Amino acid sequence: MRHILFIFIIAFSIQSINAQKATWIYYPGDFEIWLGNEMQNRRTERGTFFPPFWKMDSHYVLVEFSKKLDLTQPEEVQIYAEGRYNVKLDGKMISGYPTTVTIPAGKHSLNIKVHNQANVPAIYVKGKTVQSDNTWQVTFEDKEWIDESGKASDTSSGTVYLNASSWNFDSPENTPSKFKLATEPMSAVKSEKKNNGTLIDFGKETFGFVKFHNLKGKGNLNIYYGESPEEALSTESCETLDRLTIDNSNAKDLTINDSKAFRYIYIEKDNSLSYDSVSMLYEYLPLDYRGSFRCNDALLNKIWDISAYTMHLTSREFFIDGIKRDRWVWSGDAYQSYLMNYYLFFDSSSVTRTMLNLRGKDPVTSHVNTIMDYTFYWFMGVYDYYQYTGDKTFIEQFYPRMQSLMQYCLSRTNSTGMMEGLSGDWVFIDWADFKMSKTGEVSFEQLLFCRSLETMALCAKLVDNTEDSNKYTSLANNLKSKLFTAFWSGKENAFIHNRENGVQSEQVTPYTNMFAVLFGYLDQDKTNAVKHNVLLNPDALKITTPYMRFYELEALCMLGEQNYVLKEIRDYWGGMLHEGATSFWEKYNPNEKGAEHLAMYGRPFGKSLCHAWGASPIYLFGKYYLGVKPVSPGYETYTIEPNLADLKWIEGKVPTPNGDIYVYCDTKQIKVKSDTGIGKLTVKSKSKPACKDAVINPKGSNTYEVEIQKGKEYTITYKAL
Amino acid sequence: MRHILFIFIIAFSIQSINAQKATWIYYPGDFEIWLGNEMQNRRTERGTFFPPFWKMDSHYVLVEFSKKLDLTQPEEVQIYAEGRYNVKLDGKMISGYPTTVTIPAGKHSLNIKVHNQANVPAIYVKGKTVQSDNTWQVTFEDKEWIDESGKASDTSSGTVYLNASSWNFDSPENTPSKFKLATEPMSAVKSEKKNNGTLIDFGKETFGFVKFHNLKGKGNLNIYYGESPEEALSTESCETLDRLTIDNSNAKDLTINDSKAFRYIYIEKDNSLSYDSVSMLYEYLPLDYRGSFRCNDALLNKIWDISAYTMHLTSREFFIDGIKRDRWVWSGDAYQSYLMNYYLFFDSSSVTRTMLNLRGKDPVTSHVNTIMDYTFYWFMGVYDYYQYTGDKTFIEQFYPRMQSLMQYCLSRTNSTGMMEGLSGDWVFIDWADFKMSKTGEVSFEQLLFCRSLETMALCAKLVDNTEDSNKYTSLANNLKSKLFTAFWSGKENAFIHNRENGVQSEQVTPYTNMFAVLFGYLDQDKTNAVKHNVLLNPDALKITTPYMRFYELEALCMLGEQNYVLKEIRDYWGGMLHEGATSFWEKYNPNEKGAEHLAMYGRPFGKSLCHAWGASPIYLFGKYYLGVKPVSPGYETYTIEPNLADLKWIEGKVPTPNGDIYVYCDTKQIKVKSDTGIGKLTVKSKSKPACKDAVINPKGSNTYEVEIQKGKEYTITYKAL
Repeated sequence: MRHILFIFIIAFSIQSINAQKATWIYYPGDFEIWLGNEMQNRRTERGTFFPPFWKMDSHYVLVEFSKKLDLTQPEEVQIYAEGRYNVKLDGKMISGYPTTVTIPAGKHSLNIKVHNQANVPAIYVKGKTVQSDNTWQVTFEDKEWIDESGKASDTSSGTVYLNASSWNFDSPENTPSKFKLATEPMSAVKSEKKNNGTLIDFGKETFGFVKFHNLKGKGNLNIYYGESPEEALSTESCETLDRLTIDNSNAKDLTINDSKAFRYIYIEKDNSLSYDSVSMLYEYLPLDYRGSFRCNDALLNKIWDISAYTMHLTSREFFIDGIKRDRWVWSGDAYQSYLMNYYLFFDSSSVTRTMLNLRGKDPVTSHVNTIMDYTFYWFMGVYDYYQYTGDKTFIEQFYPRMQSLMQYCLSRTNSTGMMEGLSGDWVFIDWADFKMSKTGEVSFEQLLFCRSLETMALCAKLVDNTEDSNKYTSLANNLKSKLFTAFWSGKENAFIHNRENGVQSEQVTPYTNMFAVLFGYLDQDKTNAVKHNVLLNPDALKITTPYMRFYELEALCMLGEQNYVLKEIRDYWGGMLHEGATSFWEKYNPNEKGAEHLAMYGRPFGKSLCHAWGASPIYLFGKYYLGVKPVSPGYETYTIEPNLADLKWIEGKVPTPNGDIYVYCDTKQIKVKSDTGIGKLTVKSKSKPACKDAVINPKGSNTYEVEIQKGKEYTITYKAL
Repeated sequence: MRHILFIFIIAFSIQSINAQKATWIYYPGDFEIWLGNEMQNRRTERGTFFPPFWKMDSHYVLVEFSKKLDLTQPEEVQIYAEGRYNVKLDGKMISGYPTTVTIPAGKHSLNIKVHNQANVPAIYVKGKTVQSDNTWQVTFEDKEWIDESGKASDTSSGTVYLNASSWNFDSPENTPSKFKLATEPMSAVKSEKKNNGTLIDFGKETFGFVKFHNLKGKGNLNIYYGESPEEALSTESCETLDRLTIDNSNAKDLTINDSKAFRYIYIEKDNSLSYDSVSMLYEYLPLDYRGSFRCNDALLNKIWDISAYTMHLTSREFFIDGIKRDRWVWSGDAYQSYLMNYYLFFDSSSVTRTMLNLRGKDPVTSHVNTIMDYTFYWFMGVYDYYQYTGDKTFIEQFYPRMQSLMQYCLSRTNSTGMMEGLSGDWVFIDWADFKMSKTGEVSFEQLLFCRSLETMALCAKLVDNTEDSNKYTSLANNLKSKLFTAFWSGKENAFIHNRENGVQSEQVTPYTNMFAVLFGYLDQDKTNAVKHNVLLNPDALKITTPYMRFYELEALCMLGEQNYVLKEIRDYWGGMLHEGATSFWEKYNPNEKGAEHLAMYGRPFGKSLCHAWGASPIYLFGKYYLGVKPVSPGYETYTIEPNLADLKWIEGKVPTPNGDIYVYCDTKQIKVKSDTGIGKLTVKSKSKPACKDAVINPKGSNTYEVEIQKGKEYTITYKAL
């Protein structure tokens, strides 16, 4: 009962928040697809257009918006549309392209139909009480035909209506098609003559539009971008560049058209050209840093700060992989951004924008980004999104797209119900420095597939689809039991990597083992086996991407190895800082040296030095040191289990849909304050802790629990173990 | 063997024709979808935007074109693209946006990838031997990822490639996005003061842009369009209008932006405005009138001429329904245009453009145009297209879209395997003046469904899909036998209209009965029963649309009732001419009078007076009087069975994919000349006919056959029965 009530409250709250103001609305998912096309087709490599290699969908070009009204007084309503449109009041078309319509008192229906091929059909309607918002209905086929007598077909036409979507386009002028990220002027920190040109340093990794001040003369101007000085100076091999021909008889400022990632730029120009100085416009998505973390270790604080900056740089139109390249939306990368976002910005719109762009439209013709694992991360992202935000509307609106993506997977299972890479499927897993097979039944893929089926079962239940819920539950259970018979090796006491033609390989890779811990699929014996035979085994195969270190370290945190993980964070992320990182990298192998760190994909500067998946400490600190996580969707209930590890104190905030949760912890005191839900604080203490105005519940083994009510401040005194 | 050989020749011929010149190419079906969106969203009703009510799809916004080359000499190739693009030679990207590329001698692969959201991605490539044409391959997902070492994924990536499509965009400047129909200046024939304005008569139904010469002054200018003078003069009820505000201090010409249908325009303007005269730009698709028909009856000749003009007016970007409204692409209407086109223009591109626009893209979310019967006409159109043109490539490229549309149908069958109108399905059949049920199992829909399944079986066989061929054959056979058990009434000795909840209705409508004749589904007894109890029964329910008269008269022709049909054509189409028609109408009920003829859909001028389905005499004259029709696909073999009916002589040409078939017939002589295939001329004669250089084969019952070789002229003397 409580669960159901909660969902009702959240749904109501979303509606009422959105109903407060008029905003541009459009068909759900369409702006995300359109913006993704705009953005992902902006990538260039050395001046050459470099688009994605997967299917790009389009918005519906003809969309109808409708709203049932019940007015106590007549009302004049202003109408704005992006596209050619018509307006119907009570089923009757109003002549021409009306910009204002007077709606009489009483019950009425207002329909607006918009056509736009190049941009997303959208409307903005504003009256005293009538406002375009996501209580409006929208469809791409209204099926409103008329019979010979002119009578319209009845409204039970089988048409599927969704609630309209919106973002933050809250004024008539601020239209979706004009969307731009924010910009801010930034100065360079250093400029020096190098080779035949000038090397300019902006002090740290950044993103934006290079700007020349008082540029004058006629001639060529070449700009070579670098995340490192080596890259910027390598006119032959830097990954991005601009080659311009200037003809300014009078000096004027020039801002480069395309924003790019860089810390350094190297400029070569004809002598006939001159300019006063070079600056940039930093381009970013305005976001609040709601989450925070501080402790007594300056290195860890810096790691958190650089992680947050890395995360912000890669949180743009969407959560992208890296800002130099690919600047595309990748599901596996984005999945980690979702999780980090819940502990930093808690910007739900960035999560849904990204998920909707990745999902695209039917028909499904390949895996998400063509990668099998990335399809599964998409499902897992939905699971987490619901858990962190409690946004049931999203599930309701997009459940059909979940169904069709899962149907695509199920249509590609083999005779044992497992997924093998078929022609056109990229089985990615990780950029590993050891050899691993991607063929046959890869245990890692089945594990993620199983979790995806569980996600489907959960969401089917949320949309009251019992048939689906039973089907997916049964499929998930079957697959889960097969995981153990097919891949658990009694000899290795761990999951092996894959099975080809019925033959188990002998390779043990970390992936399946650590995800099985994350998903809670293992009993105590197997958990211990994985911990010691794989995760803490110095001879196990080594992960060299922050991408998979994310899950490895999370699994270790779940197993209580916060001390060990802290050491790893200091070594690994500290290692990058030691190499001069001002943002975290796509890949880091501590055994590499100097310019080796810059190379990847067979190119000397192929590696991205600002990659979202490098920012995982944000997530680990928030979830496993401050120790805050939701137990029921949207933080209706949650737990706080602070873990100092080897630190003297930690302090920070974790954002939630409705305010923040503040935690401070040292060896004697824990302070908590929460804006939301009902929390359960777990304290490990040598003696019974004390707290004014709170009941301390002993749970045995030096463990105590305190219920946290929202709006109250708690100070617990205790004795750390 | 012969059949197979034939197909090979045709395929080769299409390839070689297209390979002769460079042309703009694009993803198959995409230009058709884009152009359909452009065109169908141009409809207005009294100045208000009036778009379709079904889903409008979009082109793929990111498309890759590729071609394997083998050059004897190095070659410089020019590249043009509509959109942002890159060029890869042998897998390596060429820097920037190259407009010329030099390709060395030897084997090479050339890939061009184009992004365009607003218009269709398209390329035009021209070298000495390298030319963009439909031998190029194209895909919307190339799946060309690279691994960590920079190695590209292998090419067996499961990517589906199609042959690129083209139309007639044969020069770099003549791009697909700039497509416009042709125009030609035309003068008005009469201008007179009426009421408060001027009524201008252009002499006949036409379509185009009204033009004012030397328009001067400041004020309002209102133009009311009419297919009749009544409509133009009805400023309150005419269906289309333009209301303009003019501010010309100097006199200048003004051409109205939107082209419209009219014979009359009524102009009201402020006195402050003046102009010299009004003319128009006639807007049309340039097409050759390859088919012809003449006879000794001037009325029939006029009927043929007006039919051809009606057909030309409605053959535009696509085969549309009517030029005043809806100006949309309707599958049932278009199906008749396809058939008429085979006897007039034989413009295959208009057929495929229309079919591809109607089919759109997956997923299928409703019937074609939302109408169940219109889905079936789409399949039947494919069947006929292959029969008339022999274009197997079309079937190969679009078989997957046929499958998914049929899958949509099959997913909506009831427990007896029949299709009933479900929520959102429009069961149309006809605009009838009698009451008929559209619910339950409508026999007409099952009949068309059965024919559609037969089409699927045929096409499955053409693409060597034996599994599908067997499946659809079996489904078609099952359904066909059910037609007789479920709908044939021994009491009525005819098909009854429908069955609801297992109960047969008692109503006999003409539709199922006449289509069963057309499809050849009836044995001799049932054929006779239908002929006398329905088709020739004066008490049977009367058809009042040219739409269904098309099939009614065709069925009668198939039953040898050419005399009766000629009388009907004189009465019905002659009746419209008698009412002053200059093009044929959407509906004509001879019992109506005066302005009743103009009304429909509850609106005084709702009826379209130039409707494609009014033009059927073209088809009937060509197929059942000149008597020419293909027997094997693309006129490889064909028959000629001239039928004079009550006429003294007939003469005409029937177009085919490779030249024309000329036929002259009077009571003593038949002349035939053919550019194509092998014909079989059937002559009914009291005595054995004579012909120089031809063998006359007696077939009994005063019937003789003559084999017609291409390129030879035959003159047969005979004695008409």
